[in-house]
Amino acid sequence: MTKEDVKGAAEEEQAQSKKALKKQQKEAEKQAKKAEKQAKMATEQQATDEDDFAKDRYGVSAMVQSQERLGRTLIRVQDLTPEKANQLVWVRARMHTIRAKGKQCFLVLRQQQFNVQALVAVGDRASKQMVKFAANITKESIVDVEAVVQTVEQKIETCTQHDVELHVERIFVISQADARLPLQLEDAVRPDVGVEEEGRATVNQDTRLDNRVIDLRTTTSQAIFRLQSGVCQLFRDTLLQKGFVEIQTPKIISAASEGGANVFTVSYFKTSAYLAQSPQLYKQMCICADFDKVFCIGPGKGRHPLQHHAPPTCGFWELSHFAGRHLLGRLPSCTIRELCIAQVTVHRSSWPDSLESVQEDGGLERPSAVFRAEDSNTHRHLTEFVGLDIEMAFNYHYHEVLDSITDTMVEIFKGLMDRFQTEIQTVCKQYHSEPFKFLEPTLRLEYQEGVAMLRAAGVEMGDEEDLSTPNEKLLGRLVKEKYDTDFYVLDKYPLEVRPFYTMPDPHNPKYSNSYDMFMRGEEILSGAQRVHDAQLLTERASHHGIDLEKIKAYIDSFRYGAPPHAGGGIGLERVTMLYLGLHNIRQTSMFPRDPKRLTP
Amino acid sequence: MTKEDVKGAAEEEQAQSKKALKKQQKEAEKQAKKAEKQAKMATEQQATDEDDFAKDRYGVSAMVQSQERLGRTLIRVQDLTPEKANQLVWVRARMHTIRAKGKQCFLVLRQQQFNVQALVAVGDRASKQMVKFAANITKESIVDVEAVVQTVEQKIETCTQHDVELHVERIFVISQADARLPLQLEDAVRPDVGVEEEGRATVNQDTRLDNRVIDLRTTTSQAIFRLQSGVCQLFRDTLLQKGFVEIQTPKIISAASEGGANVFTVSYFKTSAYLAQSPQLYKQMCICADFDKVFCIGPGKGRHPLQHHAPPTCGFWELSHFAGRHLLGRLPSCTIRELCIAQVTVHRSSWPDSLESVQEDGGLERPSAVFRAEDSNTHRHLTEFVGLDIEMAFNYHYHEVLDSITDTMVEIFKGLMDRFQTEIQTVCKQYHSEPFKFLEPTLRLEYQEGVAMLRAAGVEMGDEEDLSTPNEKLLGRLVKEKYDTDFYVLDKYPLEVRPFYTMPDPHNPKYSNSYDMFMRGEEILSGAQRVHDAQLLTERASHHGIDLEKIKAYIDSFRYGAPPHAGGGIGLERVTMLYLGLHNIRQTSMFPRDPKRLTP
Repeated sequence: MTKEDVKGAAEEEQAQSKKALKKQQKEAEKQAKKAEKQAKMATEQQATDEDDFAKDRYGVSAMVQSQERLGRTLIRVQDLTPEKANQLVWVRARMHTIRAKGKQCFLVLRQQQFNVQALVAVGDRASKQMVKFAANITKESIVDVEAVVQTVEQKIETCTQHDVELHVERIFVISQADARLPLQLEDAVRPDVGVEEEGRATVNQDTRLDNRVIDLRTTTSQAIFRLQSGVCQLFRDTLLQKGFVEIQTPKIISAASEGGANVFTVSYFKTSAYLAQSPQLYKQMCICADFDKVFCIGPGKGRHPLQHHAPPTCGFWELSHFAGRHLLGRLPSCTIRELCIAQVTVHRSSWPDSLESVQEDGGLERPSAVFRAEDSNTHRHLTEFVGLDIEMAFNYHYHEVLDSITDTMVEIFKGLMDRFQTEIQTVCKQYHSEPFKFLEPTLRLEYQEGVAMLRAAGVEMGDEEDLSTPNEKLLGRLVKEKYDTDFYVLDKYPLEVRPFYTMPDPHNPKYSNSYDMFMRGEEILSGAQRVHDAQLLTERASHHGIDLEKIKAYIDSFRYGAPPHAGGGIGLERVTMLYLGLHNIRQTSMFPRDPKRLTP
Repeated sequence: MTKEDVKGAAEEEQAQSKKALKKQQKEAEKQAKKAEKQAKMATEQQATDEDDFAKDRYGVSAMVQSQERLGRTLIRVQDLTPEKANQLVWVRARMHTIRAKGKQCFLVLRQQQFNVQALVAVGDRASKQMVKFAANITKESIVDVEAVVQTVEQKIETCTQHDVELHVERIFVISQADARLPLQLEDAVRPDVGVEEEGRATVNQDTRLDNRVIDLRTTTSQAIFRLQSGVCQLFRDTLLQKGFVEIQTPKIISAASEGGANVFTVSYFKTSAYLAQSPQLYKQMCICADFDKVFCIGPGKGRHPLQHHAPPTCGFWELSHFAGRHLLGRLPSCTIRELCIAQVTVHRSSWPDSLESVQEDGGLERPSAVFRAEDSNTHRHLTEFVGLDIEMAFNYHYHEVLDSITDTMVEIFKGLMDRFQTEIQTVCKQYHSEPFKFLEPTLRLEYQEGVAMLRAAGVEMGDEEDLSTPNEKLLGRLVKEKYDTDFYVLDKYPLEVRPFYTMPDPHNPKYSNSYDMFMRGEEILSGAQRVHDAQLLTERASHHGIDLEKIKAYIDSFRYGAPPHAGGGIGLERVTMLYLGLHNIRQTSMFPRDPKRLTP
């Protein structure tokens, strides 16, 4: 994207939000009028109650306070099929849309990803007043409806339950929604086709996220998060099947244990602590403690969210993970790819000689510098994400672990395909994408092969240079063309671009026993064989210029006999986003956190 | 426990740690001598290498760096049974104990919960030098052994593999442990019988936790955490089966969204944020967003860990959860039971009139007061724990939800009994307890019945008074006597002792639609029907003296149609502890956090 594009997109978004705002105002006015009308009608109704033969068939129910345990069965909307024809059923659902038309009122009742048409019509079972009442129920209210299921001659294309409609005989409001909705659900699920149709607003992302409790009700959101729940389930089921043990690791850690990894400082009684960035240290400790194969699912703090002010101690992580390559050429640049947040804090004592052009801040005992990273709010970074972490002892070769991880990914892909087809289709209606492709066994390329493919495509890069984001994506496209897969492993990364605890390649000291995994050309997992020997670990840390005192506890974990082991960490939101072919990670995080967003 | 007891216990512990220290020093000296001897032997060995026919059959292997992917199969220790008799197998395990005896050397090889005896004896396959080498391998080193499986005539009572031993033909060290171990595994699994046997140390808890990577290797720890992994698995499997969706909720939250719930402050870019205490708000939002039935497993910050200094804003939680009843008689005293940490911060503006005897701190804009809670480091509280959280929409009565939760608990108990019997037995060897008993359907008592039982046992208490910890335990014993169950539900708590968002009982305004669940007389879950009506919620909050502005976002979540719902939160570490009949929650948290412990 060029700067012009960015500017254009921003303007367009602004224009869209203005339009959406206008739309909202209009809608709100309409709803307000409706509410007024409803109030008026209520008065009228009271007057005519005497004459209303159906007066016990509708109304606003008393709040459900567990007054009694009714035996009544409520039918799920998705179960309203022709098999239920002519049955009298009770359904609880949301009022999705309401359209009054003379003596009839058409409702669409929604339940999660499913909806059905319902009809209230003046007749034996419904009075004029009842139809009026139904017509004035606010959208998003929850209603209980007793109705006869009727098959329809012409398919109802706008509803998931094409073949039937409900002929309403009773209708009660269970929970009433405010007349003014901050966003309209129809707008929120409108396919993002680039051009807006006449008068048809879409909802911009901030409005969605500000009103997440409503935005999550859309069929698309329902599908996304049901599928995400499935990712977790498939991940765990596969690993438990393989004999893994689930562990729980602490999120509050002391400064000493992981150095400055944990850039979020927490006040802890009379002292300070940090939020663990990842369970790395703890899962390795579990391996040293003989758990053999472990996994955990839990919050990770962005590898990148950086504090404005320097933390009291500052270790190797800021350097290895956050520093821009132009400043710290020698350091793992996995991080350069990842660099995303506003500010980086580096302590001068840890600077390599190449670190320049930084602004000093003399206020601390150890002088520190603050500089800005360029790429501050990307489509694929969050300050808080959910990590699916694996660590596993192996016998002879880290490919034993690599195979376990790719097996697990393949089981996830297959399971989603088999068990979440409805969800995939639902998301596709709003955000079109090609089905996710993968191979069995998983394609594994060596880093050098990847570099060769990029060079053949005209990219100039060194043997030991890390992949930039554009090159990563380009390689994804090249791999897709050549091998027809959206999932592959890149193995044997250059040693210099990986963290110090990465095991060097035994055959070529420039490379390492490390790997990344990609979905649709974007990294979803980074992993490696770890150095399990205290002496080599000390050497590697020294080579990276890391203060050994800061990582003493980490190194000591390997002094009492440590099995060779490897592992990796998967970003849950990324897997969901890329599997579904979505374009922003905020769509796959229920309550996303980034430098600008802490609510809801 | 009286003060005297506490003092006595402390002294005893001190005495024990001194003994343990002496023991450790002795052991370390022994190990150091051993290492010296080993070095000497290595030199000797070099000299005699020429004469050693077995010289290729033992040694220290090169570090496993994934040099090649061997096809060799390693047999698990637990699979070493008489069926394998006379087979030549490779085993990788830890050197648990070593005992040299003339021309023989007896080893115990350990793998997780299992161990086997091995013998290296001078003969065809092993030289004198090889036996010497084996005898000098440091404890906890990881070795590869090639050996013939031999059945034994007399059962080996000290090993889990009673019926066989290994006759070693090759032995290689894969990872060497330091000669000095901070604790001895034999000591760490010794049954805690109260009196120490002659010269047999036990390991005190701080030594264990300081060296958790070794302590977790004991058969007892292995069993505890495998069973805990099982609790999570059974919890999820049961709920997924019931149609629940797994959600992921943010752990970093803004001050505004949950008030002062989150007493841990986090620096967040240019502002401050808080650690979410529980997913309460978010799981309720998911219900309002139509997910219908949700669960999550994740870190909770102790409900009680209190900050030393006042957070920038301070809401209802400090009051409702932390304040002592003698100060805040009107407030939910569920909290009084839970009160555990050093200090509580309450803002004066939120004080009810009854709040007295507090010490002022005028340094803040809103004057605040700090006071000490008495019960500061209990056996069952952690500052960070793992919560198994459930929230579920229901149709007519919150007992629909209550039944789902008790079903889930029963499935967990049954699953543990069926699938983790080895683990239960292993833990029982060190910490004896009676098998856990439960009824089907689960026993449900009303709060008033509980109070009546306590009164009949001589306890004086008011109708609307909360249960103190001793009364809770006493009631547990009374229930066990009368109904023979270690698990039951207490339903219909007095409204005044529950949080403001608890739904009042529709039939008796003094009570509420809320419940606790108990295992062996201790609370493991607290839950309720929540108020899903914005207006009633506002009333209840006002009644509790809560600043409505602080909880606006929370209340607003219910304005757009909210289903009636109920839920609860279970403490994972407590379930594990109480199921196994253990007595300290630090035994069921891998890396426990309390006000005094942040490492490892």
